Amino acid sequence: MPLLISLKTHYGEHSMTSVGKCNLRNPLLGRRLRLGFVGGGRGGLVGQWHSAGARLSNHWEVLAGALSSDPDNAHASAAEWMIATNRSYSDWNEMAEAEAERDDGIEAVSIVTPNWTHHRIAAAFLKAGIDVILDKPMTTTVSDARELLELQRATGRVVVMTYPHAHHAMVRQAKHMIRNGAVGTIRQAHVEYAQEWATSPVPDRGKGAIWRRDPEKVGRASTTADVGTHAYHLLHTMTGQDIASVRAEFHNCGAPQPMEDTAFVNFRLENGAPGILWVTQAAPGQYCGLRIRVWGDKGGLDWDQEKPEVLRYVPLGEQEQIFIRGRGNGILPEAERLTHLPRGHGEAAVDAWANLYAEAGVAIASRRAGYALPEGSVELSGAEDGLKGMLFIDACADSHESGGSWVALKQ
Amino acid sequence: MPLLISLKTHYGEHSMTSVGKCNLRNPLLGRRLRLGFVGGGRGGLVGQWHSAGARLSNHWEVLAGALSSDPDNAHASAAEWMIATNRSYSDWNEMAEAEAERDDGIEAVSIVTPNWTHHRIAAAFLKAGIDVILDKPMTTTVSDARELLELQRATGRVVVMTYPHAHHAMVRQAKHMIRNGAVGTIRQAHVEYAQEWATSPVPDRGKGAIWRRDPEKVGRASTTADVGTHAYHLLHTMTGQDIASVRAEFHNCGAPQPMEDTAFVNFRLENGAPGILWVTQAAPGQYCGLRIRVWGDKGGLDWDQEKPEVLRYVPLGEQEQIFIRGRGNGILPEAERLTHLPRGHGEAAVDAWANLYAEAGVAIASRRAGYALPEGSVELSGAEDGLKGMLFIDACADSHESGGSWVALKQ
Amino acid sequence: MPLLISLKTHYGEHSMTSVGKCNLRNPLLGRRLRLGFVGGGRGGLVGQWHSAGARLSNHWEVLAGALSSDPDNAHASAAEWMIATNRSYSDWNEMAEAEAERDDGIEAVSIVTPNWTHHRIAAAFLKAGIDVILDKPMTTTVSDARELLELQRATGRVVVMTYPHAHHAMVRQAKHMIRNGAVGTIRQAHVEYAQEWATSPVPDRGKGAIWRRDPEKVGRASTTADVGTHAYHLLHTMTGQDIASVRAEFHNCGAPQPMEDTAFVNFRLENGAPGILWVTQAAPGQYCGLRIRVWGDKGGLDWDQEKPEVLRYVPLGEQEQIFIRGRGNGILPEAERLTHLPRGHGEAAVDAWANLYAEAGVAIASRRAGYALPEGSVELSGAEDGLKGMLFIDACADSHESGGSWVALKQ
Amino acid sequence: MPLLISLKTHYGEHSMTSVGKCNLRNPLLGRRLRLGFVGGGRGGLVGQWHSAGARLSNHWEVLAGALSSDPDNAHASAAEWMIATNRSYSDWNEMAEAEAERDDGIEAVSIVTPNWTHHRIAAAFLKAGIDVILDKPMTTTVSDARELLELQRATGRVVVMTYPHAHHAMVRQAKHMIRNGAVGTIRQAHVEYAQEWATSPVPDRGKGAIWRRDPEKVGRASTTADVGTHAYHLLHTMTGQDIASVRAEFHNCGAPQPMEDTAFVNFRLENGAPGILWVTQAAPGQYCGLRIRVWGDKGGLDWDQEKPEVLRYVPLGEQEQIFIRGRGNGILPEAERLTHLPRGHGEAAVDAWANLYAEAGVAIASRRAGYALPEGSVELSGAEDGLKGMLFIDACADSHESGGSWVALKQ
Repeated sequence: MPLLISLKTHYGEHSMTSVGKCNLRNPLLGRRLRLGFVGGGRGGLVGQWHSAGARLSNHWEVLAGALSSDPDNAHASAAEWMIATNRSYSDWNEMAEAEAERDDGIEAVSIVTPNWTHHRIAAAFLKAGIDVILDKPMTTTVSDARELLELQRATGRVVVMTYPHAHHAMVRQAKHMIRNGAVGTIRQAHVEYAQEWATSPVPDRGKGAIWRRDPEKVGRASTTADVGTHAYHLLHTMTGQDIASVRAEFHNCGAPQPMEDTAFVNFRLENGAPGILWVTQAAPGQYCGLRIRVWGDKGGLDWDQEKPEVLRYVPLGEQEQIFIRGRGNGILPEAERLTHLPRGHGEAAVDAWANLYAEAGVAIASRRAGYALPEGSVELSGAEDGLKGMLFIDACADSHESGGSWVALKQ
Repeated sequence: MPLLISLKTHYGEHSMTSVGKCNLRNPLLGRRLRLGFVGGGRGGLVGQWHSAGARLSNHWEVLAGALSSDPDNAHASAAEWMIATNRSYSDWNEMAEAEAERDDGIEAVSIVTPNWTHHRIAAAFLKAGIDVILDKPMTTTVSDARELLELQRATGRVVVMTYPHAHHAMVRQAKHMIRNGAVGTIRQAHVEYAQEWATSPVPDRGKGAIWRRDPEKVGRASTTADVGTHAYHLLHTMTGQDIASVRAEFHNCGAPQPMEDTAFVNFRLENGAPGILWVTQAAPGQYCGLRIRVWGDKGGLDWDQEKPEVLRYVPLGEQEQIFIRGRGNGILPEAERLTHLPRGHGEAAVDAWANLYAEAGVAIASRRAGYALPEGSVELSGAEDGLKGMLFIDACADSHESGGSWVALKQ
Repeated sequence: MPLLISLKTHYGEHSMTSVGKCNLRNPLLGRRLRLGFVGGGRGGLVGQWHSAGARLSNHWEVLAGALSSDPDNAHASAAEWMIATNRSYSDWNEMAEAEAERDDGIEAVSIVTPNWTHHRIAAAFLKAGIDVILDKPMTTTVSDARELLELQRATGRVVVMTYPHAHHAMVRQAKHMIRNGAVGTIRQAHVEYAQEWATSPVPDRGKGAIWRRDPEKVGRASTTADVGTHAYHLLHTMTGQDIASVRAEFHNCGAPQPMEDTAFVNFRLENGAPGILWVTQAAPGQYCGLRIRVWGDKGGLDWDQEKPEVLRYVPLGEQEQIFIRGRGNGILPEAERLTHLPRGHGEAAVDAWANLYAEAGVAIASRRAGYALPEGSVELSGAEDGLKGMLFIDACADSHESGGSWVALKQ
Repeated sequence: MPLLISLKTHYGEHSMTSVGKCNLRNPLLGRRLRLGFVGGGRGGLVGQWHSAGARLSNHWEVLAGALSSDPDNAHASAAEWMIATNRSYSDWNEMAEAEAERDDGIEAVSIVTPNWTHHRIAAAFLKAGIDVILDKPMTTTVSDARELLELQRATGRVVVMTYPHAHHAMVRQAKHMIRNGAVGTIRQAHVEYAQEWATSPVPDRGKGAIWRRDPEKVGRASTTADVGTHAYHLLHTMTGQDIASVRAEFHNCGAPQPMEDTAFVNFRLENGAPGILWVTQAAPGQYCGLRIRVWGDKGGLDWDQEKPEVLRYVPLGEQEQIFIRGRGNGILPEAERLTHLPRGHGEAAVDAWANLYAEAGVAIASRRAGYALPEGSVELSGAEDGLKGMLFIDACADSHESGGSWVALKQ
């Protein structure tokens, strides 16, 4: 019996017979997985990317939702999302229970609510036996994150943390080139994430901008939690190394706010290599400026989220090599697997989201089918990665509050 | 009663109450339009983009298909596309008839077959009362194109020609900036479209590469018809002017082939301004290099498909201005309407396709509802534009065959 | 006895013992060559680049001049150039004679006057036994150019035509990579040169702008002669092939003028490969936009004068390779020889001019010393190349006047 | 009597009648200033840039030198530099004395020796009444720098510190745009300077690479002193603000070395704005990567030394503005004054050096003539700036040695 669920779907190869080298057997043949959403109603930002990625991936169909904590918004939004009335919920607890009981209940839920609600919502769905796709950061405290990780382990359900940048084909390429020795021993790394939106007064920027600066809502850090975790995760993914310790300072460089909009973080990787990670949301003329550079004793690699299809690699003492997303021309199989359009027909953010939802689809369908995916079939971030993000935030906040001492990331 | 169908859907604003300034009433509230495909089965390339754009746009659901002329491929592909067995057809004629009779029959068909079949298939669906979304070039002969245009007019059905580049937000921006006088009087224009795939022997490149070089299959021109019509359409869209006459030469610069893989076209716009349009598919290191430059007496504009979110504008005697896709920062309402993600979170090819399918959705839903869309609500290419493309190809072929005389485009 | 004159001087390696692999013996040890200028006085543009290049090269000292046809300007300019009063001439004929008689007379003259005077001035200096460095285009008629070439041959003096772009290290790199087979067989080539200055009325742009559009002064073509010859020469240099035939059309796209400011030229190389060369001086936002692309059956190469230190090379089916001016990292010896600063410390236009004047210095000193430079020691353009430029202009003008017929370049 | 010494000389406007708005009277009419060199002999790197800049500027003639501490090298190099035998010295003390006594003695000396010799050599020439052009960093200790500053004040001679990046036209543009309010209040700044040469073992890189890592030779810091002072000076120049305090860590990321090749420095500007300055010489694929970004509450500015003619400015909420070196098109008079070639005809490193030597020429000629240059006529760095650089190095070293405490820069 052929493979039923494949990674290569978002531009139409709906049932390739391999995911990398694996050969799946799966009862979900010929249909999309059933997905629910918590959050994402009118006025939401992040839910749009999740739903677009799910839709484009062609692995998922959104059939249920508690799209807002406000019932009117929830139901109006559900109508817009074309969710049946009886599967639009005013309460996510109710949704978890009701969907778990239905024969055609959702097989996974995407949680795109503000940070401080992640823990309870994810827990409810895990307990109901439903796999979870969870926006970052995982929670607002390390203890919540640990609890959620334990629950994930106890229930045996999948938790996918949504770090979309890791699903760009050329980030995958860089990750595997580094793993294959392209830069030699890593000697330093630099990652920055610069945006401009907090330069002007935040209340002008909408609801999401307000809670992101409210310590009651987001925990110990704001920008560091918001885009800092992206930067940290990208560094971790690409280098294959964790951050061992940090020294951080938080600043407010935009309109006055109760929490930081800028953080400068010095770090040491596990192998002792030093680096800088810095993030700001108060840099006029910077839109989504996530850039990483990794330098070793044999070469260097650059990647810039605003030019996601380009990877610059310079082997020490040779001419520069530019890898462009597509098939062939030096693209590794692990990256080619995330490539859809021919080279030059641009792929960008929604394609990374679609890759994420495709890989999540394969993982979740496999779990449900009891199929053990061969190592490397998909490359996803799970609950451990969610906890790591929280430990990073915590260490940064500790360091900042201590006036800049070095703080080791806890395990 | 609120608007039912909106342009702003592909990242989730599913029922905005305006499309520009129009206020639609439409019986299609709360559901996607029903779409069928002819072509697009296994091994097809173009169908992937259409289906991804339709899916991402969230205006459409693919429910029927004659995905291949080979029945086995057709049905296997249909299973992969999750089309119900009884709506997978082995024959497009049968599909047109059967779907027209169903209460829940498709409301439009996307035709993504090789060029020489467009005419008959489109005619069959128009006659069956089904709106048509048709890949370019429209047909293989001017007379077929004229016949199809007449049929479109007679049936009152919509024909949307799929020129996706015109649906990039920044092409829309350029078009309206030029219309608003940004470059003054246009004095010259240059457009090029360079690819590399035909450098190596074409049989290696798959089925599509073979029929594209077969005069029996594609009419009088190959690359000129394939990417030349894109270049021509982009020029026409952005400048608001048609080409009045051309002088063309065809070449074979890649692996030996019976038809041209390269064309150099000199032209005059309607206002007499000269320009160059050239296309090649035999330029190693060029992937999808569609670039346009328009120069007037007051300024110049550049756009490059491989950096679709960037528009460079230089008003004569001033510093350069760079417009980046997004909200605000000089982006015109007509372009902002095609913008989804915040600036810096990249949009690329599939987003343009989704815009195209969203605009097509609005137009077709409106026609079906008997609603007259206000001028400028959507900016689509129709059967007239399809014919124009054929006249361009014909004029180029005439010129080439005559050894390079000037040939006026017919009306 | 060691080498006396070397190429590697402009940043200080004043007497390297080799030029490439040659080993020169030269009586000019330990001093700069004596140079005179005709033209270049106040208000002149081109003379500045020549004198800066000569100065930076450290091969030359400017000791005499007829800097203007206006005696007041000539002498005032000479004072500014720090030329001794008794070597500032009001007449270039007088200068040629007087300098030829002096024991310490100039060893070469740079002629930077308007085109229509080149022929007579160059002839006078050649007849006086003085080597000539001559700005392009060589003359205003083919017959003048032939005469000058014959005179050069008869006198055995050196004529260096100043095509500075050929002296950029990365143009040299491209030339030798192509010669070494990097692109395989050349299948097409494209070169463009776009400027903006003629968009606004030319009288505003100074004296040089006026005579450049005066058919009495510049011969049969204006922009085609001015920047077209640069584009043609770059194409010829880099590909190693001449243009066999052209089809040209001239246009006026900027402010109204009696001569063309824009030319579109289709061409065939000697091996039959087609291409486009086009030039304009009426393109707002284009400053000195000379760009060349050469595509063969094995790869493609791009070079852009506005980023002169970068050469992009794409071998068919491989990742892109970026060569950056400097030592090592894939730079060929022929290009490294023109490299002075470490990679990243930018070199640009004046460095190319200095390279030109250094190579001219080596050639002229060698001739004077009776030393036969080994093949490839320097790569200069001579009187034959000057004539080729005139033949190119003539063929373009013939084609334009004939309404666009193909015209073969004469020999 | 007209102006004699002008800034606008390096491409030939040899005696413009104004430097900005000043109107100089100067006895040096019609000749170049007499310059000597200490250091710069065979094998030297930095001397090449100084001599090329001096030569291109056309303000200077090199007539004397103690080009090496090794007599053989000194005299052989002098012959190559075309310095008369009797003005080639084996000892710089002797040179200072002998030149001071000559009627035609040098009017200034350029000191391009290793850091630890700067102090004594500069002192000797100042005491001899000769103006000094001194490579950075000023000395190897703060106390030496203070002493030299006092000596400069006591002697009334000019000391020009050579920070060439400050003499790029577009750095000048940025400086004056910021001064004019383009970015509003500065809220953060980031500057980096990344090179690759120390990735591989330093002994392979020549003599200069060895002493740069020898604590006996360079004082308390290596890369921080070498390129760190450039980064610091650029930040100071462009923002108009000094660094108030730093927190630094030094690393060795390249081949093992006794001193740092990498430094990460957090800083506070005088107005409290935070920022990061980091430098490395162990980043494969980085050549001369000096980049600065300044963000305020009204806009942001970027400049990159490897694209020196481009300045990117984004006013908050507007489209990006790109300023390109040249005349007009938004270029301020202060920057236009440093512009020579038309826009698009590239200027790069040697042009910045020539600007520096032209501004130094104006300042030194004016001092010698007793002419008080009006404020703003030239923009040079003097002995105070040299001392500031040393205080910066010292504060970084203090912070690093303390394990990363904040250290205020002394006055």
